[in-house]
Amino acid sequence: MMDSQTNLTTELLLQAGVDLHLDVRGPKLGASLTDALREAVRSGRLKPGARLPASRTLAADLGIARSTVTESYAELVAEGWLTAQQGSATRVAERAPVRRSAAAAHGVPVRRRAHGLLPGAADFAEFPRAQWLTASRRALAAAPPDAFGYGDPLGRMELRVALAEYVARVRGVYAEPERIIICAGFHHGLALMAQALIVRGVGAVAVESYGLDLYRHLLTHAGLGIPALSIDEHGAVVDELSELAGVGAVLLTPAHQFPTGVALSPERRAAAIDWSRTTGGLILEDDYDGEFRYDRKPVGALQGLDPDGVVYFGTASKSLAPALRVSWMVVPDNLLSDVAAAKGGVETVSVLEQLTLAEFITSGAFDRHVRSRRQSYRRRRDQLVKALAQSAPDIRVTGMAAGLQVVLELPAGTEAWVVQAASRQGLMVSGMAEFRHGGRHPHGPRRDALVVNYSAVSDSAWPGALKALCSVMP
Amino acid sequence: MMDSQTNLTTELLLQAGVDLHLDVRGPKLGASLTDALREAVRSGRLKPGARLPASRTLAADLGIARSTVTESYAELVAEGWLTAQQGSATRVAERAPVRRSAAAAHGVPVRRRAHGLLPGAADFAEFPRAQWLTASRRALAAAPPDAFGYGDPLGRMELRVALAEYVARVRGVYAEPERIIICAGFHHGLALMAQALIVRGVGAVAVESYGLDLYRHLLTHAGLGIPALSIDEHGAVVDELSELAGVGAVLLTPAHQFPTGVALSPERRAAAIDWSRTTGGLILEDDYDGEFRYDRKPVGALQGLDPDGVVYFGTASKSLAPALRVSWMVVPDNLLSDVAAAKGGVETVSVLEQLTLAEFITSGAFDRHVRSRRQSYRRRRDQLVKALAQSAPDIRVTGMAAGLQVVLELPAGTEAWVVQAASRQGLMVSGMAEFRHGGRHPHGPRRDALVVNYSAVSDSAWPGALKALCSVMP
Repeated sequence: MMDSQTNLTTELLLQAGVDLHLDVRGPKLGASLTDALREAVRSGRLKPGARLPASRTLAADLGIARSTVTESYAELVAEGWLTAQQGSATRVAERAPVRRSAAAAHGVPVRRRAHGLLPGAADFAEFPRAQWLTASRRALAAAPPDAFGYGDPLGRMELRVALAEYVARVRGVYAEPERIIICAGFHHGLALMAQALIVRGVGAVAVESYGLDLYRHLLTHAGLGIPALSIDEHGAVVDELSELAGVGAVLLTPAHQFPTGVALSPERRAAAIDWSRTTGGLILEDDYDGEFRYDRKPVGALQGLDPDGVVYFGTASKSLAPALRVSWMVVPDNLLSDVAAAKGGVETVSVLEQLTLAEFITSGAFDRHVRSRRQSYRRRRDQLVKALAQSAPDIRVTGMAAGLQVVLELPAGTEAWVVQAASRQGLMVSGMAEFRHGGRHPHGPRRDALVVNYSAVSDSAWPGALKALCSVMP
Repeated sequence: MMDSQTNLTTELLLQAGVDLHLDVRGPKLGASLTDALREAVRSGRLKPGARLPASRTLAADLGIARSTVTESYAELVAEGWLTAQQGSATRVAERAPVRRSAAAAHGVPVRRRAHGLLPGAADFAEFPRAQWLTASRRALAAAPPDAFGYGDPLGRMELRVALAEYVARVRGVYAEPERIIICAGFHHGLALMAQALIVRGVGAVAVESYGLDLYRHLLTHAGLGIPALSIDEHGAVVDELSELAGVGAVLLTPAHQFPTGVALSPERRAAAIDWSRTTGGLILEDDYDGEFRYDRKPVGALQGLDPDGVVYFGTASKSLAPALRVSWMVVPDNLLSDVAAAKGGVETVSVLEQLTLAEFITSGAFDRHVRSRRQSYRRRRDQLVKALAQSAPDIRVTGMAAGLQVVLELPAGTEAWVVQAASRQGLMVSGMAEFRHGGRHPHGPRRDALVVNYSAVSDSAWPGALKALCSVMP
């Protein structure tokens, strides 16, 4: 099937730095040549004003009929790509539209902060590259041919089976694989759930009065109201749910409230379940960092108490890396079809990555990685607490029993000042105000505090970040 | 804050290979222990017949009252999870209701058709596993730490730069990396575009009168009207656009109409661009199999004619595998912010996979793979045409100049019969009726035809599938 003409053409164009696909063969030869030349002009490889070879020369070089070349030239002249004047060479038109260079537009280096201790980041240098690649190799080798197709819209069964075992063992979640839906991160899962809730006629989802704006936006954008529950030292004040009319669901972070870090108290957990059972309301449990618990009693997932009233959301973003864009939700039976419908009948999460994660979990690499990260994060937290106790003994540290962030309680009125002072030192931290719900705040005056994600930097950057943090404390 | 009891419990369970979450605390201590043990039995980690520690020993190990343990044991005995006989150890009941094994529930082999030549499938056994893994290894090794974070919501720049070069070179698309948005498949991209169109006040998107129901559903579900354009031997009859009121966009498959396989003629291409320029309407170009063209002159992307009026959609689903769930769209400048807003400010496509695909493209492995697949598919198509010419010379084969499917024109009134006859032979093929738009069909009677995806089976299954196909021709 070797075609010497094609090879010649290709070679010639390659020599000219033109790595074109040229399907030049048989009766379509002219059209291919036309396309190839048009493309060379468009991309800027043939510059405006550039002189083309005489048709006779090019035809001879390519070993094709001269008429083929002249017809191509004529077509491109007619289209405005080339110009030709009687008795002079054919040239690239001066006004031919040249494509902007991609490389030039992107030579800008990524802007870096000196130290960033903002929520959502993690010590990404610790991603277990070698172990992940091993899992990927095994998963690819074991994958049956159908694994390369469109996939089950709810997620690959290998991963759902692995996760069912994992969330039951580590988080006390009741999860048959059939009730697990794989999503592309918590944001994606929450978006699907919002659609399913709207289909069921839910008009509002209660949220915690401190949390990520991103999720509040998602809910309001979906058309849902978002009344707020107060937060105190026992977590979200779920008793307030009974005062809120028309609320069909509540979004909670029971294990480690984001960002205050408090755990929902046993009484509140029971009250939340009672509310769900009494009203038929749904609890959306965002278990974003459930794997990371240190010296306090572990708090199991709320879902274990009432698998029919709670939707459990877990993610690999904190335990492994956000870059994977894999999360999971465990959905009560009677919601499954609505959430599946919201997902649109088409898988959106890479099947190969799902298979790799399944292998990563079942091989034990995931547990080992989480354990190692947990030790490292605990060490950092202890260093932070110790350093602050020495340099700023009046600052109370809270929310530190679990998770990746702590809260530094500040004297009233100093939060904005401290955030700015830190910024001047090249240290990016979040003030509590960033996470405040725009709505009601029954608990009076705002709370001044910093939310410090101590997992956000590399080991080498950590001592400097910690020093900078201590230096800006009032 | 250190809690020696918890640590002890955790350690003990870890030693037993059981990394359980145990919510052992305060008044709920007994209940937590009960739950933990029940869950361990349910999940099969404590096997039927397994002996439990004496209550005295466990209580001492956990540092809790012995009565707490005996009460837990008693409760589980009452529930049937454990058995206890006077004077002998407490054991896991032999008949304990073991949770349905996920593996067993899913060990059912995927139901397989003898031969499936349905659109959307491909010869997935040909996925370049080794080359993909190589690209993955290189991408992981080269990835900077920030690559493991949440990522640019529009897609990783490495991939957008690689794709800008690729679509310009292979499909004649004008694409600066900034205008490329990475999506999780065409379905995802179209969903984002539908949202962006609605934000702009578009009420209807014209579609081709034959196409995939899935996409029509997506558009109507988003709230858009979907009037149909007729299809003839020159492709979609774009002149009909001027008769349709309130249409703000048109979804076309110009290179290889799906499923009829015709290419949009030059006149129609020009007319579509004219319509866009005159009315401000947007052309959505679904270039699903643009890489696969055989003996006809290549048809460049329509987008190249008017980058401001056309949104270009490409995908790795046909050229590589649907399992990757990676596609791309090239969006006019003035639509970029609306589409980005629809994507929700959060990346949904695996960043690691994006980096791997970028490496796969820039290393040349993608071009080599497509070339090899193209040769293989062309060979199959030629075999199909030849076999049909011998066994069913009256059947006209159309739409075969490109892509992965051909159309076999059938005598009027025979389509349903042939599809059924094929099914009885274990051969799954689609009749043209499957793809018909429910709306208007100005071109009179329905067209009887089979749509045959000859790329859908493995090399070993192909001869049998072809033979079965020939045998059911009327």
